[in-house]
Amino acid sequence: MTDLILTTFDWVPEMPRGYVRDIRVRWALEEAGLPYRVESVPFRDRDAQHFAHQPFGQVPWLTDGDMSIFESGAILLHLGELSDKLMPAEALARNDVKEWLFAALASVEAASQPWSFFKFSGDTDETPMRKFFDTFLEARLKHMETVLEGREWLAGAFSVADILMADVLRLVDRFDGLTGYPACRDYVVLATARPSFVKAYSDQMAHFAAAD
Amino acid sequence: MTDLILTTFDWVPEMPRGYVRDIRVRWALEEAGLPYRVESVPFRDRDAQHFAHQPFGQVPWLTDGDMSIFESGAILLHLGELSDKLMPAEALARNDVKEWLFAALASVEAASQPWSFFKFSGDTDETPMRKFFDTFLEARLKHMETVLEGREWLAGAFSVADILMADVLRLVDRFDGLTGYPACRDYVVLATARPSFVKAYSDQMAHFAAAD
Repeated sequence: MTDLILTTFDWVPEMPRGYVRDIRVRWALEEAGLPYRVESVPFRDRDAQHFAHQPFGQVPWLTDGDMSIFESGAILLHLGELSDKLMPAEALARNDVKEWLFAALASVEAASQPWSFFKFSGDTDETPMRKFFDTFLEARLKHMETVLEGREWLAGAFSVADILMADVLRLVDRFDGLTGYPACRDYVVLATARPSFVKAYSDQMAHFAAAD
Repeated sequence: MTDLILTTFDWVPEMPRGYVRDIRVRWALEEAGLPYRVESVPFRDRDAQHFAHQPFGQVPWLTDGDMSIFESGAILLHLGELSDKLMPAEALARNDVKEWLFAALASVEAASQPWSFFKFSGDTDETPMRKFFDTFLEARLKHMETVLEGREWLAGAFSVADILMADVLRLVDRFDGLTGYPACRDYVVLATARPSFVKAYSDQMAHFAAAD
């Protein structure tokens, strides 16, 4: 098996460090013990080659032999298919992993990302639309709280769905958005205590610091 | 093979009709010619049984034997695995379908949904954050325009990725957001001219009208 190659930026500003989406991929690779190496593309000058791999000019992408995969969700699904430490073999459990992979993005991050933009902007907006986005996120967290009160991991055992959901909720927690949701907060704490996350986080921080 | 069962609401208000996400599933089922029937759950009183199938209290979900699947992206992936009319057999092409399924949600709808909320709200907000969300969507559409200038469908042949992407862009078009993006607009026109979409749309409209 040839090494997997994870491509990320060579450098990013302070603010997103520790939260760049390559961490989702690092985390899964570490969890599964799959061999990989990290390559960099310029943050500042994104060329045609970059867009050929990632049409939105973002990171990460994963290279597996002749396959180049963008979108963290698609990469995690691919890695899940490579390792039963990331996705169980049994059909119903696999289905749970897949639906929660999509839910982490389309039901939770779809609500947490706009909310986080208000936070990143300095959180001074007090318009009705701002209230709307707060309520939108709260509704989703309320449902996630119910789900996580009833189980340790989303799909039986720890899986790529938890990597994605915990990473999404981790950014909400960064801005103290999980205060009223103790089960969500405990879930983030438990997930990010795994050695695979600790290493992924520290590797990402070191990668960007090396370029300063 | 037992019939697939698509569950949606019994009724919704006028505004979302034609855009409820069951249309993505109807479209794929029609495109593949898979046998299915439609069941309803109350829009107004969502009970524990509903949340057991869809933890956020939304629709649709799909039942396939003993498997219940929520999230339109996960349902489309499942249907893609059932029919090569929705997802090709070859590995690299399948990868393209999967990454674009995620991209439609996490890169395009993640930007179009907040923008559409401003539109739905009456479009009176003129704050810096509103401008930020406009710019966020425009950046994604600009990249989609480049992608769609170069190809008819996202992953070689028409696939579930196109169903999802065209449905996401269709809502942008509803609010005239594709004016500056002719390739995106042509893509929506071409996709929604397919008999499978025409039937899915008309069936959804009839379904909700029957409950008025």
